[in-house]
Amino acid sequence: METINFTRGVPANESFPTTDLIDAASAVFKTHGTAMLQYGPSRGFEPLRQWLAEWQGVPVDRVMTSNGSLQLIEFLCLQMLKPGDLVFTESPSYDRTINLLRRHGAKVVGIPLEADGPNIEALERALQKAVPKFFYVIPDFQNPAGATCSGEKRRQLAALADRYNFLLVEDAPYRLLRYRGKEEPTLYSLAPQRTLHMSSFTKITYEWCRRGLLPPQIEKLKALYAPRLDATLSGLDKYMPDATATRPDGGFFISLTLPEGVSTTAVRQQASTRALNLADGLAFFPDGGGERFVRLPFCALSPTEIDEGLKRLAESVGAARTAHVS
Amino acid sequence: METINFTRGVPANESFPTTDLIDAASAVFKTHGTAMLQYGPSRGFEPLRQWLAEWQGVPVDRVMTSNGSLQLIEFLCLQMLKPGDLVFTESPSYDRTINLLRRHGAKVVGIPLEADGPNIEALERALQKAVPKFFYVIPDFQNPAGATCSGEKRRQLAALADRYNFLLVEDAPYRLLRYRGKEEPTLYSLAPQRTLHMSSFTKITYEWCRRGLLPPQIEKLKALYAPRLDATLSGLDKYMPDATATRPDGGFFISLTLPEGVSTTAVRQQASTRALNLADGLAFFPDGGGERFVRLPFCALSPTEIDEGLKRLAESVGAARTAHVS
Repeated sequence: METINFTRGVPANESFPTTDLIDAASAVFKTHGTAMLQYGPSRGFEPLRQWLAEWQGVPVDRVMTSNGSLQLIEFLCLQMLKPGDLVFTESPSYDRTINLLRRHGAKVVGIPLEADGPNIEALERALQKAVPKFFYVIPDFQNPAGATCSGEKRRQLAALADRYNFLLVEDAPYRLLRYRGKEEPTLYSLAPQRTLHMSSFTKITYEWCRRGLLPPQIEKLKALYAPRLDATLSGLDKYMPDATATRPDGGFFISLTLPEGVSTTAVRQQASTRALNLADGLAFFPDGGGERFVRLPFCALSPTEIDEGLKRLAESVGAARTAHVS
Repeated sequence: METINFTRGVPANESFPTTDLIDAASAVFKTHGTAMLQYGPSRGFEPLRQWLAEWQGVPVDRVMTSNGSLQLIEFLCLQMLKPGDLVFTESPSYDRTINLLRRHGAKVVGIPLEADGPNIEALERALQKAVPKFFYVIPDFQNPAGATCSGEKRRQLAALADRYNFLLVEDAPYRLLRYRGKEEPTLYSLAPQRTLHMSSFTKITYEWCRRGLLPPQIEKLKALYAPRLDATLSGLDKYMPDATATRPDGGFFISLTLPEGVSTTAVRQQASTRALNLADGLAFFPDGGGERFVRLPFCALSPTEIDEGLKRLAESVGAARTAHVS
C-alpha cells in the first residue's frame, strides 16, 4: 500500500516550470552574471526589488528580499524584539513562525482564529491587557487552518493596529492561489504605515518575472490545485459527513476538527497502520489547544490520492473512536 | 580620480566562471529539477553532500551545507551556546563572526594572533582561567590578518583541545587559494573528533563540481590572484618600506600595523581625501586593540590599482603622521 502524506505544506512536484527556469537562469547569468555571483546588497538584487516594487505599487526602498519568508521573520525579530516582548499570532498559526518567535524570547499569545479570521472581541480583550510589538497574521487561506479573513475583520484589524499602536505582520504566500471567489484587500492596502506585507517568492528568478512568466504560472497552478481542493472537500463530504472542516476558496490547506473524545494523537496512530501520515496538531497552537486539530495540505497529492487518503482518515477516526469508547 | 577600495574581502568580478555555471545550472535543472525546486532536507542537497564527503574523505553524515559560512556559524551558536557562554577567537578575527557570537550572548575572548598563528602561551593562560565552548580559528591566510598557522601550532591546538575538552571551529574558506609554498595539515585531520571544519562554497552548483570544474577553477584563481599578492607585497616594499606587514603565501588578505602614534582612524580620514577607502580596524578585535590595524584585501583589485592604492596609502600615513606631530 502506497503511503499518503497529509503532512507538510509542500507544492506539487509537477507544478515546477523547469524549462522556463532553465531559460531564465541562463539569460540572467549572461546579462547579470557578475551581480549574481558577487556579494550583493543586503536588501537584495536591485532589478528584482525594482520589479517587485512596480508590481506591488510601492517605492523600491520599501522592498526587501530574503532567502525565504522565515529569514524575513528572523530579521524582523532581530530588529524589533528583546526577550520577554509580547507578540500575538492567530491560534492556530504556522508552527515554524511560533518556534522562531519563541527562540527570540518572545511571549507568544494566540488570538483564536475563526472561519472568517481572528476573533476580534478576543483580540480587543488581549489588547486591553497588553499591546504586542506585532500581530502575525496570515489573512489568506491560512496555514494551517485554511481560513480567510473577511473584509470587515481586515478593516477592524487595521483600525485596532492604529488605535493601540502595534504593527501588523501580514504573511501572504498563498494569496495569489485563489481558485474561486473574490479577493479581499490586503492589510497593507488598508494600513500601509502599520503593515509589513510578506510574500514567498524564493524559487523565482528576476529574469523569469521580467519575462511575464508569473501570471501564466499562477494560472497553471490554479488549474492544477483547484481540482485537488474540490477532491478534498467532496472526500470529506463522502467519508466524514459530520466533520467540522474549513471550506477555503484557495491556498494549500483545509483543517479539520475531530469529534469530541477523539484525539489527533490517537488518529495519527491508527492512520500510521493504514499507510497514512498526518502532522501533529499541537505545534500550531501557541498556548495550548489543538488536541483535535488536523491539517490537510492537499496540493501535493493527486485527486485519487486525496480520495484514498480521506477514506483512510475516516477509517482511522472510526478506529480511534472505538478504541476510546471501549 | 578613480576611487580604490581596500575595504571588503570580495572576489574579483573577472574570476567568475559564468559560462560553465550556465551549462551546469541548465544540466542540473534538467536532471534534478524537482529536487532543486522542492523543499529539500535540512542538511542540504544529497548528491552535493555525497560529492563533498568523497572529496573530503569523510562519511556523508558528517557533511552539512548551508547558504553561506555565517549561516553555519549561526546554526552552531543556536545548537551550542546559551547567553554568557565563553568562546575564544583569534585577535584580530573576522568581524562578522565576532558580531554573530555576541548576538547569541557569547562572552568573546580574543587570543593574540602572531605571524605563525595564535599565541599558544596566551591560549594556555586563558584556558587555565576558563574553558570555552569552542575556539574559532581561521588557520589558512587568516581574515583579516593574512597569517597562516604553522604545523607546530596546529598540533599544539589539537593537543590543547583534547586536554581541555573544547571544540575547534576551523574556518577554511581561503585554504585552496595557496599561491606558493607547502600546505599545512587541517585541524580536522589532526583532531577529527574535536574539529568542525567549514569551507565556503556558496556559489558552486553540484553539477559544476561533478563535472570536475573545481580544480581548473582553483588554478585559474591562483593565476589571477598570485600577481595581485605580489603587487601588494612589492608595493609595500616600495612605498612603505618600514611598515610591519604579514607576508602571506595565499588567500585574500595582507594586514598592516601602522607606526606608533598613527591611528587607522586618522589614516582613513586622510585616505578618503585621496580617493582611497579603507576598512576600520577596530571591528576585528574582540576585546580592544586594532587602533593601528589595516586590512588590505588585494584580490578584487588589478596590480595597477594595487600599486596606486598603496602609493595613496603611504601618502595618507605620511599626512596623518604630520598631523599627529604638529
